[in-house]
Amino acid sequence: MNRTELIGQIREKRTFLCVGLDPDIKKMPSSIVDNASTPGEAIFVFNRRIIDATAQYCVAYKPNLAFYEAYGIDGEKALADTVMYLKENYPHHLVIADAKRGDIGNTSAMYAKACFETLGADAITVAPYMGKDSVSPFLGFDGKWVVLLALTSNPGSLDFQLVEDKEGRRLFERVIETARSWASSEQMMFVVGATRGALFEDIRRCAPDNFLLVPGVGAQGGSLEEVCRYGMTSDCGLLVNSSRGIIYASSGEDFAEASAREASKLAAEMARMLDLYQK
Amino acid sequence: MNRTELIGQIREKRTFLCVGLDPDIKKMPSSIVDNASTPGEAIFVFNRRIIDATAQYCVAYKPNLAFYEAYGIDGEKALADTVMYLKENYPHHLVIADAKRGDIGNTSAMYAKACFETLGADAITVAPYMGKDSVSPFLGFDGKWVVLLALTSNPGSLDFQLVEDKEGRRLFERVIETARSWASSEQMMFVVGATRGALFEDIRRCAPDNFLLVPGVGAQGGSLEEVCRYGMTSDCGLLVNSSRGIIYASSGEDFAEASAREASKLAAEMARMLDLYQK
Repeated sequence: MNRTELIGQIREKRTFLCVGLDPDIKKMPSSIVDNASTPGEAIFVFNRRIIDATAQYCVAYKPNLAFYEAYGIDGEKALADTVMYLKENYPHHLVIADAKRGDIGNTSAMYAKACFETLGADAITVAPYMGKDSVSPFLGFDGKWVVLLALTSNPGSLDFQLVEDKEGRRLFERVIETARSWASSEQMMFVVGATRGALFEDIRRCAPDNFLLVPGVGAQGGSLEEVCRYGMTSDCGLLVNSSRGIIYASSGEDFAEASAREASKLAAEMARMLDLYQK
Repeated sequence: MNRTELIGQIREKRTFLCVGLDPDIKKMPSSIVDNASTPGEAIFVFNRRIIDATAQYCVAYKPNLAFYEAYGIDGEKALADTVMYLKENYPHHLVIADAKRGDIGNTSAMYAKACFETLGADAITVAPYMGKDSVSPFLGFDGKWVVLLALTSNPGSLDFQLVEDKEGRRLFERVIETARSWASSEQMMFVVGATRGALFEDIRRCAPDNFLLVPGVGAQGGSLEEVCRYGMTSDCGLLVNSSRGIIYASSGEDFAEASAREASKLAAEMARMLDLYQK
């Protein structure tokens, strides 16, 4: 899915919500788990119900690969089934493989193949530590995206991302500025955590037109209003992710309805933000 | 495998070689590929022959997860079979999952489960960009190791890893010094590329006793002698990896014998290095 299509979807649906698919069988209703012959089967049934319930309120889904890999091959199958289900039934939703990959060139090329060709995702999250040749192999695919880690929402983001160089430039700023020379905003997004609301102004100075994937609203305490006030552009320029707040809104049999309710609340709030802050 | 056992293996076998298992069916002899019903089956047969041929010359194997993930579930099965084969037949070899993972705490916990429990590896490579809480979940497993990226061997390592902060401390030094407060040298190793020979002196000032996993000898042009002169400690403290130089030493039917020959040459060189530089 290219940038024009993504912006079109956001305009049409008045939402920039991304639903994070971090399935954990310990948090699913027992009927789902009891009726499945494997954990992977439970995950796929759960995901399908969540997707059908929330699709009208979001423009993207973000399966978090760790939650599938933890169940081994059975989990990998659930991931492949989930992406295929999305591609077949919701072709206008962006599918972001949240993988945080990044390695030397020939290895990144294999990760790119795994994500874009074998799995069929539209985008992948990539870690910047190893530099240009670790990111470039992900950029050779038409209509596919790299979502590069810049400023994350977790406490450990303080350890390295905010370190200033001799000119006072922080590492996340250097990452964004450097990476913008590797690819245009047609192919590159950045991860910026919602818990860093006021820093969105600084981010927009470095990356005026890139889409930002924003985790940390909800469970991690970030403010949607602050993110939009400082981060929204005339093309929206934001994908705000919520995982646990939506998919585990209820642990009972009504989990799908509860996820729809939470997604719909966030989408309504996002429509309001678009009215207020889209410049 | 704990540190004492690893050092014991190196002393006994007079080698600190790690063989990288980066299987690529395009580089395998046609008999292997033609006789297999899937790419994953070819990979497992190829790996088994390489392992049997090289085990006496090395103390560790490092499957590179990208090369398995690229083949989807079939590749994941080859990875699981390879690790199981190693655990059953070569229980004194360290198995390093080269995965370069790293995410927020609850996600890293799932990656740790995937690597250490589901897959059964002894160690995992982890990217430092997201800081302490992205690394800590990998540290809660007895006898398991985190191998943290510090200074890699690829051209892109110049982009961020060598950037100096206001006090002149380079990012890779900050990563090492900070991470040493998260775990002891019983649980934490660092990745340092062989192409940075002279920088091993600086690395040893920050990390006097941690094991270093050193890629980049061979195909990437690093010098074993330089790595050992500047990086070896009284416990050896080095695991030097070679992947393509060993496993693709021949693309003919003699690939296993050729891999043994290359591994044996490197091991002989390593024995000489231990005589010269083990302090």
